[in-house]
Amino acid sequence: MTFQVFSELQYQVYSSTTFIFSIQASRSNSQVIIEESLVTEPLLAVEEISGVEGESRFIRLKANDNSQFTISYQAQVDIDYNTIHQRKLSDTVPVNKLDADVMPYLFPSRYCQSDKLQKLASKEFGNVETAYGKVAAITEWIYNNVEYISGTTNSSTSAYDTLTERVGVCRDFAHLGIALCRALTIPARYFTGYAYNLNPPDFHACFEAYIGGEWIFFDPTKLVPVNGLVKIANGRDAADAAVASIFGNASCTSMIVKCDCNDPDFKPYYFTNVENQKGLSYQ
Amino acid sequence: MTFQVFSELQYQVYSSTTFIFSIQASRSNSQVIIEESLVTEPLLAVEEISGVEGESRFIRLKANDNSQFTISYQAQVDIDYNTIHQRKLSDTVPVNKLDADVMPYLFPSRYCQSDKLQKLASKEFGNVETAYGKVAAITEWIYNNVEYISGTTNSSTSAYDTLTERVGVCRDFAHLGIALCRALTIPARYFTGYAYNLNPPDFHACFEAYIGGEWIFFDPTKLVPVNGLVKIANGRDAADAAVASIFGNASCTSMIVKCDCNDPDFKPYYFTNVENQKGLSYQ
Amino acid sequence: MTFQVFSELQYQVYSSTTFIFSIQASRSNSQVIIEESLVTEPLLAVEEISGVEGESRFIRLKANDNSQFTISYQAQVDIDYNTIHQRKLSDTVPVNKLDADVMPYLFPSRYCQSDKLQKLASKEFGNVETAYGKVAAITEWIYNNVEYISGTTNSSTSAYDTLTERVGVCRDFAHLGIALCRALTIPARYFTGYAYNLNPPDFHACFEAYIGGEWIFFDPTKLVPVNGLVKIANGRDAADAAVASIFGNASCTSMIVKCDCNDPDFKPYYFTNVENQKGLSYQ
Amino acid sequence: MTFQVFSELQYQVYSSTTFIFSIQASRSNSQVIIEESLVTEPLLAVEEISGVEGESRFIRLKANDNSQFTISYQAQVDIDYNTIHQRKLSDTVPVNKLDADVMPYLFPSRYCQSDKLQKLASKEFGNVETAYGKVAAITEWIYNNVEYISGTTNSSTSAYDTLTERVGVCRDFAHLGIALCRALTIPARYFTGYAYNLNPPDFHACFEAYIGGEWIFFDPTKLVPVNGLVKIANGRDAADAAVASIFGNASCTSMIVKCDCNDPDFKPYYFTNVENQKGLSYQ
Repeated sequence: MTFQVFSELQYQVYSSTTFIFSIQASRSNSQVIIEESLVTEPLLAVEEISGVEGESRFIRLKANDNSQFTISYQAQVDIDYNTIHQRKLSDTVPVNKLDADVMPYLFPSRYCQSDKLQKLASKEFGNVETAYGKVAAITEWIYNNVEYISGTTNSSTSAYDTLTERVGVCRDFAHLGIALCRALTIPARYFTGYAYNLNPPDFHACFEAYIGGEWIFFDPTKLVPVNGLVKIANGRDAADAAVASIFGNASCTSMIVKCDCNDPDFKPYYFTNVENQKGLSYQ
Repeated sequence: MTFQVFSELQYQVYSSTTFIFSIQASRSNSQVIIEESLVTEPLLAVEEISGVEGESRFIRLKANDNSQFTISYQAQVDIDYNTIHQRKLSDTVPVNKLDADVMPYLFPSRYCQSDKLQKLASKEFGNVETAYGKVAAITEWIYNNVEYISGTTNSSTSAYDTLTERVGVCRDFAHLGIALCRALTIPARYFTGYAYNLNPPDFHACFEAYIGGEWIFFDPTKLVPVNGLVKIANGRDAADAAVASIFGNASCTSMIVKCDCNDPDFKPYYFTNVENQKGLSYQ
Repeated sequence: MTFQVFSELQYQVYSSTTFIFSIQASRSNSQVIIEESLVTEPLLAVEEISGVEGESRFIRLKANDNSQFTISYQAQVDIDYNTIHQRKLSDTVPVNKLDADVMPYLFPSRYCQSDKLQKLASKEFGNVETAYGKVAAITEWIYNNVEYISGTTNSSTSAYDTLTERVGVCRDFAHLGIALCRALTIPARYFTGYAYNLNPPDFHACFEAYIGGEWIFFDPTKLVPVNGLVKIANGRDAADAAVASIFGNASCTSMIVKCDCNDPDFKPYYFTNVENQKGLSYQ
Repeated sequence: MTFQVFSELQYQVYSSTTFIFSIQASRSNSQVIIEESLVTEPLLAVEEISGVEGESRFIRLKANDNSQFTISYQAQVDIDYNTIHQRKLSDTVPVNKLDADVMPYLFPSRYCQSDKLQKLASKEFGNVETAYGKVAAITEWIYNNVEYISGTTNSSTSAYDTLTERVGVCRDFAHLGIALCRALTIPARYFTGYAYNLNPPDFHACFEAYIGGEWIFFDPTKLVPVNGLVKIANGRDAADAAVASIFGNASCTSMIVKCDCNDPDFKPYYFTNVENQKGLSYQ
């Protein structure tokens, strides 16, 4: 399935500022970039750097005092996510068999204080059978118990807050999902991407849990079709995978995000049923 | 300079539990392990895994229900830390020149909420000249404003708490130092190690800041000589580099830690003077 | 029913310190003090002051540098709590009919951040019928979802923490109950007292909710019989009604607490059944 | 000095809602209401209730589903604040001499977690001479270290947050002042009022500390003249003295606030100098 993604961010820069953008589609076996382009207006020196943990791609640039600039990205991306069958999803990988590169996703992080949620996670989800069942139950619980309201949270809101205040946006939903998984010793990581049919259009955040040896996709917002995502980056949480990290003094003055499917036969698929244990992997 | 380190940890295991230990000396250009041994009693299958970010070494093992075991480590380690001269310490590496593997140490983490401390860090330390001067001032400030009292904090205490409550142990001092550095856009990371002359004997935690292209060592507790450390691991914070991460149900029943210098000429060196801008690098 | 209560607290005083104790049985229509005595050893000047909000009685005394003292209280108290019938318990007093002296118990306080829990309380308990039913459901929920473990919390732990960490002692259980009631616009207040059969013996904390025009008693710990309490004080939370508030530098070196029933026919009564809507009022 | 105050609040009410307003000038020896009027449009039943702790006056009313209303208050108020001389301001009232009605202002409250700030307050301000000197130093410290930026905080922001994040509005400045005073065993309370020359016009919040037996006025924002206030209410913090407490579902659609001085000779007086130890009391 081929998707066409586009984003355009405009900034007013007050003093010399370095930007790190995470807006490019990632490259992996299941996600092939057919063509892409990144431009800035006016032309700025742009450097692409890879994340330590692999597929993520960052753009770094420096803008001068009292300047304005626009960064635009467009890509045509072929997505071939895997569907993982039920039998495999029953398997939990025990901690003593986890690969070293998966281990960091078991530990608490800035926005996912899993160390504080162990009793709660165990009480609420500990008795659900299979790792997939647990994560699906967490996803349903968040969907049913946290209200999605724009503008209610900010960049310092964490899973600890969301669990109590019960309100947030996609980023907060993802952080809570990750924290609850890790509290149950299930590795989980943040996922940002372009999402088909997201309304109003924006970048999207959700999460992946490590089950049966695969990173399986979950989205507690249920706002987008699970087969309609183009991955930008993974990270421990939003600290690692912000759309833009700004070191200096600048503000975003405009943002446009688009994600369309080129294929007229594309059938958006929404998870509606926990019992239907079919997992998708975007890796 | 050659140090002899030793640690012995004993556990009572209630239900089947996986342990990840970070107690071995790390290997690097400036730290050579002459000989080492790790034993468990009774004999357990032990696996060594390397951290994603390089030098750190983890031991993983699984213990059964209702068992007891002891893990002991001893090593003879040759330390040849670098002394970084003043001129180099004046240089800050700007964000747009940082290597990709240093970038993660700019972002907030579980125990170091640097995103919340930018105004405070800028107000308190923003006007100090040079990156080294800023980190030295942070180190002095913590030493002067936070009381070291055992037992006042726990494994969920973070820099945000310590800044206000003004009490903690070495781990809390390190977290606060790291958070304040990152809030000033200076990369900083957690450091655990064996420490000469620490009283009462225990593992030690401090931190490193990235200045002039080197990871420079700082210890706001001033409890140990800066030339008397054997590094175990680095991490973003204690979430990455805990002495023991326990997945199951077990409790530590005894702990012994030792760090002696084999060289009779060893002169412990304590930082007493911020103005004396000489940095040590344990990398 | 007549109870015999006793407490003895011993302090080591390092520098001149003022103490405010809240250890005397309160006086009300339903609680008559037959006889009581309060002594300090050595003899100190003791002042009794009444709380602003009525029945609570505080003892204030000042102890000198480098001294030791013991304060002991014993009383024989006749308790005649009211049993409030089911019909009345169905009535909620709407905010626009609440008496002015009840209003403060609607607002958030130090340990009961009800302002942050409105969505959660409404989601979990909003659909339960009647005010009594809601508070009974809150009490059951706390009993079922929070573990009682001594030593897990401290004097700065609040309802916000307990809701997430799911562990605490009687004080934490009470704070969470109060916060959830207030989040549903049900006035609630802290209750401290002597408790029959509490094991190990200690002062007890629970809470009262204002239903049908009466302050009805609830205890989410279920550790003591609901008809076996001698009230010491009410307050917004533990900030108002601490057993001892210490202004200076001193530490408690010993504490003895006792509560016995003089009547051989006393039948301890434990709430076991939410459906059995019978409320007790200790006012 | 005579001031003319005016406020008008407009609400859209979605479901039946009870409002408690605190917008009327309080009555005291130093504040005499010459004339006042309160009207609602459309006409609603309005009840005036007094706060438990004395001078505060609350308006309670109930509005129906899907309605709109406006509440307007205007008053002419004669202010005769006291100027307390330097000698008296040197005296601290020790805890063992405080009146019972002052005691509650020593304890921590919802937005003023003084129990967590004792080490910090003692380190920063413990050595300043006299109680007045300490509170003046706290006021200066807040003015110098916290940025006043509208819209940065919300109704759940507390002194604990402000101390670290170093940004807020008048309410946050007041809460931090109160918390630091209480941490030094100086009683302190929240003060809301109309303020001359506040720009943009709004209700104002500041605080009073109990020194030399008087409640002395402090304003860490330095935004208004200290002799240009008309008190509305005191409270432990904003939980007790919110301009509007809303029990139901409604939103404020417009707010107008005015405070003018009728006397052409009025000379606004701004505190600029800590050394000038002259206190004002609005009691």
